[in-house]
Amino acid sequence: MALKLEIAQEILLKATRVTSVEQIKLEECWHRVLAENIVAATDFPPFDRSPLDGYAVIAADVAKASADNPAILRQIENIPAGFTPQAAVTTGTATRIMTGAPLPPGATGVIRLENTEVDGDMEKVFTGKGAADSICRQGEEIQAGETVLFAGTVINAGVMGMLAVLGAAFPKVYARPRVALIATGSEIIPVHQPLAPGKIRNSNSYMLGAQVAEAGGEVKLLGSAPDDVDKIAQLIAEAPVSDIYITTGGASVGDYDLIGGVFRKLGVDVLFDRVSIKPGMPVLAGVKDGKFYFGLSGNPAAASISFEQIVRPVLMKMGGRSRWWRPRIEAVLAAPFGKSTGAKRFVWAHCWQKDAHILAEPLGKQGNGMLKSATTANSLIVIPENSPPLAAGETVEVILLADVTF
Amino acid sequence: MALKLEIAQEILLKATRVTSVEQIKLEECWHRVLAENIVAATDFPPFDRSPLDGYAVIAADVAKASADNPAILRQIENIPAGFTPQAAVTTGTATRIMTGAPLPPGATGVIRLENTEVDGDMEKVFTGKGAADSICRQGEEIQAGETVLFAGTVINAGVMGMLAVLGAAFPKVYARPRVALIATGSEIIPVHQPLAPGKIRNSNSYMLGAQVAEAGGEVKLLGSAPDDVDKIAQLIAEAPVSDIYITTGGASVGDYDLIGGVFRKLGVDVLFDRVSIKPGMPVLAGVKDGKFYFGLSGNPAAASISFEQIVRPVLMKMGGRSRWWRPRIEAVLAAPFGKSTGAKRFVWAHCWQKDAHILAEPLGKQGNGMLKSATTANSLIVIPENSPPLAAGETVEVILLADVTF
Repeated sequence: MALKLEIAQEILLKATRVTSVEQIKLEECWHRVLAENIVAATDFPPFDRSPLDGYAVIAADVAKASADNPAILRQIENIPAGFTPQAAVTTGTATRIMTGAPLPPGATGVIRLENTEVDGDMEKVFTGKGAADSICRQGEEIQAGETVLFAGTVINAGVMGMLAVLGAAFPKVYARPRVALIATGSEIIPVHQPLAPGKIRNSNSYMLGAQVAEAGGEVKLLGSAPDDVDKIAQLIAEAPVSDIYITTGGASVGDYDLIGGVFRKLGVDVLFDRVSIKPGMPVLAGVKDGKFYFGLSGNPAAASISFEQIVRPVLMKMGGRSRWWRPRIEAVLAAPFGKSTGAKRFVWAHCWQKDAHILAEPLGKQGNGMLKSATTANSLIVIPENSPPLAAGETVEVILLADVTF
Repeated sequence: MALKLEIAQEILLKATRVTSVEQIKLEECWHRVLAENIVAATDFPPFDRSPLDGYAVIAADVAKASADNPAILRQIENIPAGFTPQAAVTTGTATRIMTGAPLPPGATGVIRLENTEVDGDMEKVFTGKGAADSICRQGEEIQAGETVLFAGTVINAGVMGMLAVLGAAFPKVYARPRVALIATGSEIIPVHQPLAPGKIRNSNSYMLGAQVAEAGGEVKLLGSAPDDVDKIAQLIAEAPVSDIYITTGGASVGDYDLIGGVFRKLGVDVLFDRVSIKPGMPVLAGVKDGKFYFGLSGNPAAASISFEQIVRPVLMKMGGRSRWWRPRIEAVLAAPFGKSTGAKRFVWAHCWQKDAHILAEPLGKQGNGMLKSATTANSLIVIPENSPPLAAGETVEVILLADVTF
């Protein structure tokens, strides 16, 4: 009896534990997952500073300055960025200041260099407009003691910059879940070998390897094994320790006993052995000693969708992320989908925007063995259980196959 | 005089050459860019095969089979996947066949195992429904001689699988453009050092490093240099050979001469020195010997947006990609944007879907030094030149900060 997808996902996510924590150099943190909250030790900016090149002044001194009637100020100091002012600005004086330099004591405004002119020892200021607002105040972006970043955050470019601002030179991140991939099937040959009668190349391991990497996992390709319980079990038993073991092939009805037999031999507790989705119904899931074991279909399309729907959420949660579902949006079907649907169906699609609507079009051939659609799809249309054929113009739910966090 | 953004982009893209080509192992190809068209040497599937476990039969033999009146066939052979059939199926006979195994000569249909029952030496077949359609035909997905994948394609999971199917064990990919990053400014200290008066940490190199990686570049962090033309020029001159050199800081009016002076010292031809966008107006661009030199603002927000709009397209084209612009969609402003806009403005935003509309909301503080917005944004609102303040409900153009190829 095939399990409902949502129940299968719930069973797995309940059993999923987050990986260990490691500290790595900031420059290696991109796309990793933060494993600690980051609290600011100091304000940022750490001092009042100038956002532009010009003169620090008393704002009132220049309030009435104009091109015809410039304010005349005496320069008392010059502060490049990185240096600290020594003298206080007082009425009638100004300090030359560079972008990012600390404001001298007493200064209540900054005048843009373009609005000034040197006149001997003095500076002419032609406008005081906006002077008081041209100060970046200490702590205006971040206050000391503030929790700025949270565990579970995927480290994007902005987060990288923020970690640097906060001095997090060795942030704690979650270890990448280790995922071992094995292609089973006596018809499978390595990708570099020439085809022989009855043989096909191992494509699933490469496709799934990329899916694992995209979900933040560390991929281990263990190659392939023939349709032989002992040999498959041995390959898994001798593999480097992994958090998730995935086989492809040997999972459908006739050969159910193959991967089922492997699980029994390894002492893996079976959680379920089929899920009500198309493609991807044959999928065994089991656990042993906190490690997950998945037996996916040998059909590339089925293996890919099973991974997406069943393995990926586990991998995302295990990797410490605070969200493990892809974004879903509502779209309008741009072309009919002619088949009726029993088990919940996932259809590779291209979606785009037209006249403010999001349209989604099913892509070419969608047979279980069909890979072409997966090379160009940017989305999956989700067709609910027991749906009739769908006409163009109907509203459908679409999963975006990318990192946009709608 | 600040250049229009579109003109600056055009000048740069005209001068951009694609990097060299290298051959790497398929398992290392994820997210790389294909540098060759891939033509199928053989059909795929390479032979007629069974999509399921069951029996290969003469379809006419089972056309009228039913539960009450099963067809009775004699099994003549058993073909596991990976083996080739020896005997032809003839009327009254059947061959046991596994998923993926080659169809025996003569067979015109496949019966699912669940619809059969062993009865001594014979097989009872209870339905022939769909038998003739249960064959994967040789070449139904790919025909020999067909160009299946094209140079310029980013290698996603589906493409990885397809490359494997086609036997591309060492695909040609474009070399990653090498990008050297230098933070300039006497106020800049390394991220691991404690703050001192007037100092801030180097955050731009880490933020831009992630932006470079996301655009497919290979990052080299060269550290920081004080506000000194000779020292900055020396750091660049002694850097490992790179395709793009990027400095941050020293690019705005008062200190224009700093990076301008570095360019002159290095013999770099300046293409432009400011672009009419906000944030990010100060940006020097130059070329020398086919290498690009960019001087971005030291303000993180300005540096990030200048990179996005000016450096990123160059990097994407240089990396061999067939598209180098991010997807843009139309959205409805979910909250007012209170400032009027002179130069074209980019505003970090969060966008999401509600009632079939895409909404976009400007994020918190958007000052030039403000990084928080960049940590959570999934999009940038583009506000055209000379716009008044915008009210909620107005339509805006939005750039999606992710890989969705709308």
